[in-house]
Amino acid sequence: MLHIFLLFSLIFTSTNVLAQDFCVANTDSGIVTPSGYPCIMEANVTSDDFAFSGLGVPGNTSNIISAAVTPAFVGQYPAVNGLGLSAARLDLAPGGVIPMHTHPGANELLYVVHGHITCGFISSANKVYLKTLKRGDVMVFPQGLLHFQINAAGKRPSLAIVTFSSPNPGLQILDFALFANDLPSSLLEKSTFLDDAQVKKLKGVLGGTG
Amino acid sequence: MLHIFLLFSLIFTSTNVLAQDFCVANTDSGIVTPSGYPCIMEANVTSDDFAFSGLGVPGNTSNIISAAVTPAFVGQYPAVNGLGLSAARLDLAPGGVIPMHTHPGANELLYVVHGHITCGFISSANKVYLKTLKRGDVMVFPQGLLHFQINAAGKRPSLAIVTFSSPNPGLQILDFALFANDLPSSLLEKSTFLDDAQVKKLKGVLGGTG
Amino acid sequence: MLHIFLLFSLIFTSTNVLAQDFCVANTDSGIVTPSGYPCIMEANVTSDDFAFSGLGVPGNTSNIISAAVTPAFVGQYPAVNGLGLSAARLDLAPGGVIPMHTHPGANELLYVVHGHITCGFISSANKVYLKTLKRGDVMVFPQGLLHFQINAAGKRPSLAIVTFSSPNPGLQILDFALFANDLPSSLLEKSTFLDDAQVKKLKGVLGGTG
Amino acid sequence: MLHIFLLFSLIFTSTNVLAQDFCVANTDSGIVTPSGYPCIMEANVTSDDFAFSGLGVPGNTSNIISAAVTPAFVGQYPAVNGLGLSAARLDLAPGGVIPMHTHPGANELLYVVHGHITCGFISSANKVYLKTLKRGDVMVFPQGLLHFQINAAGKRPSLAIVTFSSPNPGLQILDFALFANDLPSSLLEKSTFLDDAQVKKLKGVLGGTG
Amino acid sequence: MLHIFLLFSLIFTSTNVLAQDFCVANTDSGIVTPSGYPCIMEANVTSDDFAFSGLGVPGNTSNIISAAVTPAFVGQYPAVNGLGLSAARLDLAPGGVIPMHTHPGANELLYVVHGHITCGFISSANKVYLKTLKRGDVMVFPQGLLHFQINAAGKRPSLAIVTFSSPNPGLQILDFALFANDLPSSLLEKSTFLDDAQVKKLKGVLGGTG
Amino acid sequence: MLHIFLLFSLIFTSTNVLAQDFCVANTDSGIVTPSGYPCIMEANVTSDDFAFSGLGVPGNTSNIISAAVTPAFVGQYPAVNGLGLSAARLDLAPGGVIPMHTHPGANELLYVVHGHITCGFISSANKVYLKTLKRGDVMVFPQGLLHFQINAAGKRPSLAIVTFSSPNPGLQILDFALFANDLPSSLLEKSTFLDDAQVKKLKGVLGGTG
Repeated sequence: MLHIFLLFSLIFTSTNVLAQDFCVANTDSGIVTPSGYPCIMEANVTSDDFAFSGLGVPGNTSNIISAAVTPAFVGQYPAVNGLGLSAARLDLAPGGVIPMHTHPGANELLYVVHGHITCGFISSANKVYLKTLKRGDVMVFPQGLLHFQINAAGKRPSLAIVTFSSPNPGLQILDFALFANDLPSSLLEKSTFLDDAQVKKLKGVLGGTG
Repeated sequence: MLHIFLLFSLIFTSTNVLAQDFCVANTDSGIVTPSGYPCIMEANVTSDDFAFSGLGVPGNTSNIISAAVTPAFVGQYPAVNGLGLSAARLDLAPGGVIPMHTHPGANELLYVVHGHITCGFISSANKVYLKTLKRGDVMVFPQGLLHFQINAAGKRPSLAIVTFSSPNPGLQILDFALFANDLPSSLLEKSTFLDDAQVKKLKGVLGGTG
Repeated sequence: MLHIFLLFSLIFTSTNVLAQDFCVANTDSGIVTPSGYPCIMEANVTSDDFAFSGLGVPGNTSNIISAAVTPAFVGQYPAVNGLGLSAARLDLAPGGVIPMHTHPGANELLYVVHGHITCGFISSANKVYLKTLKRGDVMVFPQGLLHFQINAAGKRPSLAIVTFSSPNPGLQILDFALFANDLPSSLLEKSTFLDDAQVKKLKGVLGGTG
Repeated sequence: MLHIFLLFSLIFTSTNVLAQDFCVANTDSGIVTPSGYPCIMEANVTSDDFAFSGLGVPGNTSNIISAAVTPAFVGQYPAVNGLGLSAARLDLAPGGVIPMHTHPGANELLYVVHGHITCGFISSANKVYLKTLKRGDVMVFPQGLLHFQINAAGKRPSLAIVTFSSPNPGLQILDFALFANDLPSSLLEKSTFLDDAQVKKLKGVLGGTG
Repeated sequence: MLHIFLLFSLIFTSTNVLAQDFCVANTDSGIVTPSGYPCIMEANVTSDDFAFSGLGVPGNTSNIISAAVTPAFVGQYPAVNGLGLSAARLDLAPGGVIPMHTHPGANELLYVVHGHITCGFISSANKVYLKTLKRGDVMVFPQGLLHFQINAAGKRPSLAIVTFSSPNPGLQILDFALFANDLPSSLLEKSTFLDDAQVKKLKGVLGGTG
Repeated sequence: MLHIFLLFSLIFTSTNVLAQDFCVANTDSGIVTPSGYPCIMEANVTSDDFAFSGLGVPGNTSNIISAAVTPAFVGQYPAVNGLGLSAARLDLAPGGVIPMHTHPGANELLYVVHGHITCGFISSANKVYLKTLKRGDVMVFPQGLLHFQINAAGKRPSLAIVTFSSPNPGLQILDFALFANDLPSSLLEKSTFLDDAQVKKLKGVLGGTG
């Protein structure tokens, strides 16, 4: 019955060659466009491209925020290119905090794998939306709005998986944006109303100049 | 210093009124459009709208597939309206299987919370992408392609959280689409090459007629 | 009056150079992105690029399905790149059938050029939408949903032209996806509830292994 | 085996209720949004909503242009709402012409059902793309660009089916836009360089004032 | 020649009725969807709906920031609904500053009408992009990134017009988001590393509690 | 406290590398896709890329239309690539006119910097929307619709800044499209109802042939 198979494949061959069900990123081409990276040709794509095990490894929380973010954005996980999705792992040790930040390019959905996490975001109307989530709870954080996550599990760690509505959501951490670069203190103080002493102190901590 | 606050709010008042950072669905209005449901006005939105605890409850797997899907689509979780995201919980008891299906309206990202899961999807080029995932692994399933998940944890259950690139991804389960409605068997057999006995058997199981 | 022309062209020259009214695909560059192929520069584009005569040629229906699909997707017809449209020709000889399939990446609109065609699709709610169309009728098939077309013109052939809402709609034919690759039969049977004999029979016909 | 069916439907019931595979327009609600009309609930949708027979009826070409356009836009064919597609029938009697026009909201793909048609469009670079098409040929016309179709079949009529990349492509016929309304002739002449006599003549024909 | 006009209008009447070239917002319906407001029917739309004179009126800069923002978002200017555009006027008196803020929903393009303005934004990579613009200069500020504008015209005022890539760009002013609501100071301090004294001081100025 | 900084940057380094907040066009690569040009890597981007001073220079209006258009589209201003925005400067000397034209690829928002300008556009329903704007007024022109601007400031010049909802809006000037190329006069006259003498005259002025 092999001739049946051959006839079938003859009929539809050309469409299969052109199929673009997905577009695993070729991140080595030096090219990136507003819609994402060029695709690896399907002939070179394997099952391993679609799976990613990096979120199974706990982040190192031995740091000042007792927390870690492990991204699975298009840079780490090329399969999400063009799919309107990406993910990250949030490790929160006791006392851990993911500081106030925004994702300029995506909405976010957080799922608590274990522990308790106090999450908050602030709307354009300056209203605060605050919840303490337990294992299995989810919460969404709309694109571009300031938000934070704080461990609320006491002496135990918490773990969350977050997903984004873009392969490359961006991440602007407030303190880094304000205090970890060369934005002149005079402009920073004028545009934030923060005191000079406060600005200088945090620039000292975070390596800012100017 | 209250006058400062008053001046500030005067300056920006009108923009705040119009802010549409999010659009929590009003699912009771009887209206739904191609872009989603109408929004609840922000004045009536609370923190509770953004959080959802339904995915923390194990699904009932005492059924023929030893598995359960618990959705957090826009119908259950109105906060995802307009955000390009939704989620679901997959419970897989020992021997459990999420049968072959597609999501016509979204890409999918699966995260293994615990256990082992064998996942596969088939591309337009009829190529099979198959992986057995362990705790912490993720895998993506491109929009509209047939895929399935099978528990690979032996005598232990597995749990996965999946997220979608749409608030309403749709779900077409192959066996239900073929055998659980009134599609005449003659048309079904002609368009699938399945034997009449096979069709009749599965229509019997799934309640199909015709 | 030539100077008038010269003045005019001086004023607007730069915008013309940049015009991107269309983006005829350069399918030879080895590059494809989530938004499509790179464009041929307009200076190299001719009228012939926009027209396509391949759909005027009857497909060869001397095969097991007595039918043929002739695509005018971006691979065959580079002018549709970036335009959100493509087309195909469906030839249905007497007894012909376009088997159950989906387009993962596009909605479809079918127009009957001549003959009668029985068309059906199945929604996520497992409801069957079935119509027998005559010459001049149109029908739409939403993205990602299983559908089929069967000649209903008795001893005469039928012809349809279909258009899609994407330059590259994809095509997943159910029997090919299930039975024409190396998906292990055990996984296939577990995820479809098909009998082993049925699976083995169709794998034999379509060249599947595993 | 009915219990199996019942179990299945229990598991997935809620997702089915929310499925939005399509959004057949409710054109009687008095509501239309930037994304289209509100949807009829799926329970009230039938097979007849997805099929449309209006394009099977020849248009009346006993008029000044010896041609007729029969649209299947969302207003006539509510099933295309939200699908990014619509269609129209072009009847061209001997000597017939579809006058110079644009579609502000969609790209167009034309298929010649019978006859010969001379088609042309003009790019932003003022370059003319001109082709005489025969039966079975297709041609694309990019969004917003001036184009026209003229019967080239001598004493025989021609028929074309066109599809659009939007449910509501719009249609701006040049002569109607210029000469069939109350745009003051002085402004019209100043902005088009047409002579006053020409403007007055065509306003007379097409009912324009001012 | 009136009959010509009548014939023409007969041919195309139905398409005109359905034209949706624009969608002037009905902001009184109580309905807003993710794609924007419902449209006013074209029969009720006049030229006055498309023009807006509110940006011609200088804002009142007799306030703490010596500046004013006058929006022409969809709330003030319903014609931009669905058009992917809106605008605002920035008045900067001597010493004036538009404080650090983001637009969660749009990119921004600023044009200096008169004066000199020092503009800066900070990327996700924490890099500062800073320029002092003069009359006629433009600058873009990507979506969701912190930015500010400060008058650099010495003792003279400056005026800028900004446009956005959305009818409803949103506006999150950093100090208001942090200090003008009931976000508990303990959470705020933990997620921003700001000192308690600094937080209390600015909450006092801006009316924050908690 | 340097170790704190180092720890921070370690945690988030990988996300920063991948940030794609913007995509300044590399217009020298010879590549352009439907979504725009490839991006310059952020390491090579400076503040100067985001600012553009070309709109501060008056256009030369010593020409037949006493007007000039100075574009800041992606070709001139690479920073707008992927941002859904661009701009242009309109100089109107006394008696100046921007002739009837369309932008096939974008909506437009016009702001009057000084002077008075009579603006009009025509909808798909052939309705004229006409306004004379004064300094500070804005008006929108929907995508793909014919429109024009005429100086209404008497003996004084007028200046407007327009912005578009696309980095590359396109520009089709009616007279150039009709009379400045090789479209055969017979086809042009048949599709526009213009008299042969009128067509010949304007082809003579604008350099058209055929």
